[in-house]
Formats: sequence, C-alpha cells, structure tokens
Amino acid sequence: MKPTFKTVALIGKYHSQEVAKPLLELGKFLEGREIKVMLDELTASQINTGRYPVLPLDELGEAADLAIVIGGDGTMLNIARAMAPHDVPLVGVNQGRLGFLTDISTSTMLGTIEAMLDGQYVTEDRMLLDSRVYRGKEKMFEALAFNDVVVSKGTKGGMIELEFRIEGEFIHRQRSDGLIVATPTGSTAYALSSGGPIVHPSLSVMAVVPVSPHTLSNRPIVIRGDSKVEIIVQHAADPRVYMDSHSSFDLREGDMVQVRRYPHPLNLLHPAGHSYYRMLREKLNWNRE
Amino acid sequence: MKPTFKTVALIGKYHSQEVAKPLLELGKFLEGREIKVMLDELTASQINTGRYPVLPLDELGEAADLAIVIGGDGTMLNIARAMAPHDVPLVGVNQGRLGFLTDISTSTMLGTIEAMLDGQYVTEDRMLLDSRVYRGKEKMFEALAFNDVVVSKGTKGGMIELEFRIEGEFIHRQRSDGLIVATPTGSTAYALSSGGPIVHPSLSVMAVVPVSPHTLSNRPIVIRGDSKVEIIVQHAADPRVYMDSHSSFDLREGDMVQVRRYPHPLNLLHPAGHSYYRMLREKLNWNRE
Amino acid sequence: MKPTFKTVALIGKYHSQEVAKPLLELGKFLEGREIKVMLDELTASQINTGRYPVLPLDELGEAADLAIVIGGDGTMLNIARAMAPHDVPLVGVNQGRLGFLTDISTSTMLGTIEAMLDGQYVTEDRMLLDSRVYRGKEKMFEALAFNDVVVSKGTKGGMIELEFRIEGEFIHRQRSDGLIVATPTGSTAYALSSGGPIVHPSLSVMAVVPVSPHTLSNRPIVIRGDSKVEIIVQHAADPRVYMDSHSSFDLREGDMVQVRRYPHPLNLLHPAGHSYYRMLREKLNWNRE
Amino acid sequence: MKPTFKTVALIGKYHSQEVAKPLLELGKFLEGREIKVMLDELTASQINTGRYPVLPLDELGEAADLAIVIGGDGTMLNIARAMAPHDVPLVGVNQGRLGFLTDISTSTMLGTIEAMLDGQYVTEDRMLLDSRVYRGKEKMFEALAFNDVVVSKGTKGGMIELEFRIEGEFIHRQRSDGLIVATPTGSTAYALSSGGPIVHPSLSVMAVVPVSPHTLSNRPIVIRGDSKVEIIVQHAADPRVYMDSHSSFDLREGDMVQVRRYPHPLNLLHPAGHSYYRMLREKLNWNRE
Repeated sequence: MKPTFKTVALIGKYHSQEVAKPLLELGKFLEGREIKVMLDELTASQINTGRYPVLPLDELGEAADLAIVIGGDGTMLNIARAMAPHDVPLVGVNQGRLGFLTDISTSTMLGTIEAMLDGQYVTEDRMLLDSRVYRGKEKMFEALAFNDVVVSKGTKGGMIELEFRIEGEFIHRQRSDGLIVATPTGSTAYALSSGGPIVHPSLSVMAVVPVSPHTLSNRPIVIRGDSKVEIIVQHAADPRVYMDSHSSFDLREGDMVQVRRYPHPLNLLHPAGHSYYRMLREKLNWNRE
Repeated sequence: MKPTFKTVALIGKYHSQEVAKPLLELGKFLEGREIKVMLDELTASQINTGRYPVLPLDELGEAADLAIVIGGDGTMLNIARAMAPHDVPLVGVNQGRLGFLTDISTSTMLGTIEAMLDGQYVTEDRMLLDSRVYRGKEKMFEALAFNDVVVSKGTKGGMIELEFRIEGEFIHRQRSDGLIVATPTGSTAYALSSGGPIVHPSLSVMAVVPVSPHTLSNRPIVIRGDSKVEIIVQHAADPRVYMDSHSSFDLREGDMVQVRRYPHPLNLLHPAGHSYYRMLREKLNWNRE
Repeated sequence: MKPTFKTVALIGKYHSQEVAKPLLELGKFLEGREIKVMLDELTASQINTGRYPVLPLDELGEAADLAIVIGGDGTMLNIARAMAPHDVPLVGVNQGRLGFLTDISTSTMLGTIEAMLDGQYVTEDRMLLDSRVYRGKEKMFEALAFNDVVVSKGTKGGMIELEFRIEGEFIHRQRSDGLIVATPTGSTAYALSSGGPIVHPSLSVMAVVPVSPHTLSNRPIVIRGDSKVEIIVQHAADPRVYMDSHSSFDLREGDMVQVRRYPHPLNLLHPAGHSYYRMLREKLNWNRE
Repeated sequence: MKPTFKTVALIGKYHSQEVAKPLLELGKFLEGREIKVMLDELTASQINTGRYPVLPLDELGEAADLAIVIGGDGTMLNIARAMAPHDVPLVGVNQGRLGFLTDISTSTMLGTIEAMLDGQYVTEDRMLLDSRVYRGKEKMFEALAFNDVVVSKGTKGGMIELEFRIEGEFIHRQRSDGLIVATPTGSTAYALSSGGPIVHPSLSVMAVVPVSPHTLSNRPIVIRGDSKVEIIVQHAADPRVYMDSHSSFDLREGDMVQVRRYPHPLNLLHPAGHSYYRMLREKLNWNRE
C-alpha cells in the first residue's frame, strides 16, 4: 500500500521571484487537504508568508514525508542531495520547459498533484554518489553528487594527468581536460556532452567519461554501481573536483578523490503514466527531422 | 568448493593448421591427468587422430564438464553460443596476440591449465542475447549472440529507417546505417567502433548503439539486461539482421527483431590473477603515448 | 555583368505528383518573361503538357542557360551531376522543409525567381568528385559524385579491409564498415553522421571519414581538393562503391577506387541575402535548446 | 635555387639539461662549415659557453637565416611564434620520441643537417593565428598562436555561453566548456582530443571545434583560413582565452576574441623524404592492431 503524505515540504528555486505565486497556490491547496505544509529558510525568505513553519533545509528532511520542488533541474539536484539522507521522496514542478527531473508543469500542477496524493503516481529510485577527497590519510572534503563528480584541470592551461583506479586496481594513467564519474541521472548532463552514453536511471552503474582525452582510445566506461572509484591527481597546474557543479574543492598533486555509491537512493515520484523515454525524446529532439 | 573437471572438450579454430600441434599436446597432457578428452567433428577432421571420441558440437555440450578452445576471439564467440545452453564453462587459448576472451598463450598453456585444473582460476558469467525475427505473428528465425545483434541496411544504398521499442514502448524512429544491441562482451567490438561505451562484463545491461545515425542526438543508450528490445524495420532496400556476424537473416519491411537476455550465461574461466582492465589497457594501447 | 537567362530547363522530382502544379506555374511565369522553357524527358512524362520542348537530361545541359529544380536535395544531387559538365547554373525550389541545396519555397517562388532573373542573386561554386574503378589497368566504371564516394563492406558481414593512398603515398590500412570521401557539400550528409566535420562549401577540400573504424585513432582527415585519392580493397566479402548513393559498382578484392576533383564545379544560384550558416543553424537545430 | 644559410640560430628547450650536449655538438659542426652560430639568451644561460654571440629571441629573428631548435613540439610552438614575424625558417631536432614538428633525431642530426645545408630538404609553410581581445572598442591583448586559440570556461564551474561569428555574421550561440579555433598544425593537438578532424598542414583553413557542447549537433566546422572569426563571451564565471596554452588573458562577459590568419606563415624545413602521413601514422598508432 502506498503511504499517505501528511507533512509536505515546499521548496522553491533559489532567488526566483516567479515561484512565489505557484508555491502559495500549492500551499493553500495542500492545506485544503489537511496536509501540514513546511518551508525551508530560503524559500520562506522569498515568499514572505508567516503561514507555515520554517525550518533549515536539513531539518526539513527530518520532518517531511514528501518534498515538492518548484524550479528547474538545477534546483532538484540541490534538494535531492539534501533529501536523500532522510529518504524523503521528491516531486518536481517546472514553470518553464519541462526538465529531466521536473516533469510537472505549474499550469496543471494542482490536478496532477491531487491525483498523486491519491496514490496515482509511479516511483523510482535514483542513485547518488558520495565523494571524498583524501590528502594522504586525511579526509579533506566530502560531498554528495546526484549528477556527477568531475576531476578537472584548472584555468592555468595544460592538461591534467591523473591515475584512475577501480577497487584499488590501476586502470590507466590519462591526460585530458578531466574525468567525469556520472550517475545514470547525470548521464544526460555533462557526461553526454563529453561523449558518454545515455544510461537508464534504473541501473546501478557509473559512467566514467574522459573529457577531451589525449589518447583517443580512452573511451567512456560503464562500471558497477557498487564500485570504489579512485582518481589520483598526478600532475596539473590547479586541479579541482566538482560535485554537481555545486560543491568544489581545490586539489593538489597527490590528492585522491574517492567516489562510491551513496547508500540512500533518492526516491522520485512521477505522475502516473510518466515515461523516461518520452522525456528523453522530447529533450533530445529525436522527434524532429 | 570448485568442481573437478573429468571430461574436457578440446576445440580448435576452424580451418586452421596451426592448432593441431597445441591441441595434441594439450590432449596428451590431459590424458596424463586421467581426464577424458573429447573432440568436436570439425576439430577431429583437422587433427587426424583416432585417439579421442568425436561428437557433434551440440552433443559435446551435453557430455563435457569443460571446454578448452584454441583459437582467437572469433572461435570463442562460436563455441560460447554452443556451450552456453549446456552450462559448460570455457577456457580460451590463443596462438597469437591475446584476445579479450582468449587470455592464455599456447607457449605457456600447459602450466597455466595445470594450475587451473588444480582450482587456481577465477570465473565470470557473461550474458548472451537471444534474438528472434517475427514476420507478423510467425517466428521466422532465432539465434544466439554473444557479442551483438545488428539490424543493418543492405548494400543497395540509402539508410535504414527503423522503430526502436523497449518493453513495448516506442522509443524513437531512427534513420541510420543500422542499430547494434551489444552485450557487455560485445561492447568492445563493433559497438565500440560505432561510438558506444565500454561496458564492464559483470553488468547485466545491453548497449544500444546506432551506426551513423542521421539525427546527431541519437546516442548510445545503456539499458537493463532484462529488457525486451524490439526493432521494427520501417523502410530499407535490403535490410538484414546479424548475430555476431555469424548468423544472419534477410529482413523485409515490417519485420520485427526481438532481443532478450538468454537465460543461460556463459561461464568463462580465467587463470588466477586475470584482470579485465589489464587486457583492456593492452588491447586499446592505453599504455602507449 | 550578370548574364541574362534566355533558356531555362525545368526539372521536377522524379515520380512525384506534387511537382506538376508548381512546375506549370513556373513555366507560365517564365513564358510571360519571354524565356524559352524546356523539360527533360522524365519531368515531361509526369506533367503531361505538349507546350514545351522535351530533351534528354544530357542534351538539356547543352541547350539551357539555367536549370530550375523543384524537389528536394536528393533531386538536386542528381541534376547537379548532369548539369556540372555543361556549366549550367542551378536553382533549387522545395515544396516541403527547405534543404541545404533547395532554399526557395514553392509558396514564394514566383517572386523570388523574378528577382533572381533580374539579377538579385548570389552565386557559389561547389566542387564535385570524379571517381573511377580500376581492376588492374582497366577502368571498369566511372561516375560523378556531388556529396560523396563511399567504399563500403557488403551485406555478408564482417568488416572491409582497405588501403588508403594520397598522391600514391600509402596512408594506412584500415578495417571498418567503409570509407567516405566527401565534398564540402557532402560534409553535412553521410559524413556528418559518421563523425566527420562540417566543411564550408567554398573550400576546395575533401573530407575523408571512416565509418565505424576498428582502430579508434582512425579519425576524419581533411585534405586538399586537388588530391588524388586511391582506395584499394584488400579484403571484404562483397564490397561496393557508391557515388551519392545513386550509382554503385560491385568491387572485388584488389580493385582500386580513384577519386579526384571534377574539373567543372557546379554553379549554384541563391536568392540575394542567402546565408549558408542560417541554413545550417536551421537544419541542425542550433537555435533550439 | 635554394638559399645558403650563413647565420644559424641554435635554440634549446627551456630548462632542459639534456640539450646542452647536442647543442654544442651542433654548434661545432656548423662552425666547421663556416656558418655563423648565434644563441638566444635562455639557451645561452643553460649551456655556458662564451663562444657564440647571444641575442634576445626577438633580435635573433632579425639576425638569423635559419633557426635550429632542439627540444620537443612545445619548444617548436614557442620558437615558431617568435620566428614567423621575421620569416626565419625552422628545423626541429628531438632528443626523445619524434614529434609532429621535430622530426630529426639527435642521434642522426649531424648527417641529416649536413644534407639539409647542402640543399637536401623539403619546405612547407604553416599558418599561424593572430588573436586579439577587445573590450568595447579597446584592444586589451594580442598574441600569436601556432596551434590554437581557445576560449574557455574557468574553474568556477558551469559552462561558458558564447556567441560565434564569422565575417561579422552570427553563426550560433553555444554553451560548452569552450571553443577551439585551430590551425592545421593544431588540428592534431587539443582539437583532435575534442573530436575535431585532422587537417592537412598545407591547407589554409581553421578548424572550429567546440569542447563538450551542450547541443549535440554543435559539431566541428572547417572554415576558410582568411575568415575573420569572432567569439563573444555571453556568460561565464571566470572565462579565459589561451593562445597555444602559452599566453592567456582573463576575459569578462561582453569581451570579444577576434581570430585571423597571421600574414606571415612559418616556414618549416624537413629532411628530404619527409612525409607528414608517416609521422601521423606513427603518432596515432595506425600501424598497430
């Protein structure tokens, strides 16, 4: 049996005026169904209503049964990293062109969300990555990624030279602009632009995609989702690691970036009838000549 | 506990004179260990010895505990399709440069195989594809593939236009030279040449790779291994489907090629210390500048 | 000073009912300007009018000052090969979505062509390829290509193995699905699908693009337009050479396909204000997200 | 008739101990032929001999008839930019594995250079790029490039959004990691890693290659060598332009990078029998399986 959602967190795109109106509409609608509504601090500061309890994003994850995000895929990435540790499912609403993760339009959201609250939804688990930077034995940094972890050369020119290991085994030394470790969710983002494959989101795999590699046979590799990936910076002027182009950390030569599947997947809710491939077809213009 | 191999099938590359000598050496060595040696008909016709029982390839699968192949990766593909239905594990010996599947050199085979018979081996399961051609409701053809199933335009020029479905869902219509459905094993063969990713052989996935697609966003997709893939020929002059470039069948417009994971994986035995990535590094020249 | 066009050949897409009406409209319009109108035999057989002289396509090239084609890019390719030897300029009219070569819509053609006849047009020369098949010293076949010459494996499976030479110098031996030698015009056709670059049509170069090459470093090469390219079939089951996917010739092992720039470029006329890049942007969906 | 070289500049790889010995050998050899030898300041500081006149690199270009470089391709790039304005031809000697530009081995250099001084050499002209940064109407920076001019996103994450123009015409707006404008010489460097074609060095063309473009149909384009290319930074966190990864300049939104062919080509001398394609085959491992 599907769960009943009693407490719903409403989260809007950061620094966006346009989300206030649909957020308030949605709040009112949820209240009408006797659902408790909560806001995170950033969203609350934008919509100026004293009506709902306000919590830090992190505590919201503790308190809510469900989070509804109004924004784009970028906002969803941010909220996904915050909600996954608390196993709070996510629904994405988009004001503009639908995204890979935000598949409900604000123009039809009330009807759609009503049906979803009545149980008419499909659910899927998406893997995240937990990535850590080690300098010698010391852990310097740790962050989650929903799309990808990217070890990249800096701006000072020249390539990065790095060593790539799986389960401690040396795979190869590579010179390139960088190396992407992408989740299936991230396979349609930066990894795709760099020549990686599209990976169905139900798979527990990582796509490891080099960016502009010097050796032409350094091709994208799809590996087990439970792999322990390690990237050691051999040589670079000012290397850096990015998690979802949200967090980043300045690396030094010798630093190791370790990437593993995060134990808590993110639970995405879609309206009944949702199709991943229809979204893909739409986003990649497969239906046009 | 690892099994003891009591009956071993010896199989040589078809139409190759050079395999006779190592086959006979290996036969003698196995006899010395009181292992029963058997040959398939083709191999027997090449090495001219009355010493060992000779069976059709298919019956050999019934009778043997283990098959040792001397040849290249092409021979391994052929024997894999024959042995997988009988769950007979395979060992590959190569006379020339080592292959992805044939990782034992004839020059060192006796020592290596002795150790393997003593239990010093690692084992891995590789998926195969079962592919069927339907014309309306009638099944016209069926064959296994270890590398890939390829639906291809013919020689009469022009592209093939086909429809691609997963689990009965329409994914897209595509114009191209063809569409490859590759196993992880096949990901380093034709699919790689056509821009597909390398896929670790332990994964249960298929890589679906278009060949020279008209629409540039028709990129390789990695999907679940238990998917039901269907390719319907919409338009082509003389389309054809290939399984491992071994079997093929002439298609007509409207024909459907269905591809599914074959229920019996192939069991490959490697010498202890075998590394997939070392082989990859070697074959793709990653260690050279 | 720009020439006055006194005799215009009207040519319609082969086996297309829809071109009759615009062709007749265009004929009447040209007559009104006291321009002599002529038809080729195929077009005449479709529009059933006794009004205009009818000539074989080849003689039309001798007689006309200008040819106007109503059809798509495929029709333009065919007519280009026929008109280039006679240095007859070409105008392309399209009934559907505009093509790379057919950039005038039937819905606005009368106004546009009127302006062009008054001298408001831009002109560009496009190179063609002359390709010959030699078996030993004997020339077996010769044909022009406006897009590309493609040496291709056949349907019997396996790759083609070929040797590639420029100015008689050995460049490399290659195993692949085939090798494309494209003009700048052809760079946006099959060559683009196979990973080749877009080449500006004003350049006198050839793009040599391998199709699914076994060796991943066998990348597209752009060479001088006055190069003498030779492709020798080393090994293939049933190889074939195509010119514009229009002509083709069955090759044997040892055959040599020689490709050179054809001495007569094709002269294309475009309405004033024509932009190659606008067309490219439109056709490749660069303006969409 | 070929010129006689009376004054030769000897230039060694910067900060490299190993070049001292071959430089002194070469100097002695040239003296023996009554050729005047000169050094640049950096080279002189490394080899510690008072024997030869020492000039700044720039004045060396004025004084010398020929420059011989001992180093790798990176050193050649640097010296090429310094010599091209003075039309001084260049010879490249390499201590390690031969490069694209340094095709004479130190182990055989004396014999080879002797033959070249006797006129047994082939010569080729290579184009360079002159690139300027404009902020409004003010020229902020100017530098030559022998390989490529690259407009690139910075380290702060996210893509760069830029507008690309040719001859003042808008081509497209693009989101990517960056955009490479490469000479034929540079086509086998960074541009190749990013999916660009190999371009024969005798062509006067530029290859414009996007790095990891968001829009998959943003493909490499080959354009006329006399094009005026303009790249305007629309949006980026900390964009930068690089010339040969040697010079760079920090860009701001709104800055325009203009790229044109530099009027003086670089004149490269090769030993008689030199083959560009043999070098290519060697560097790209085309001769290996």
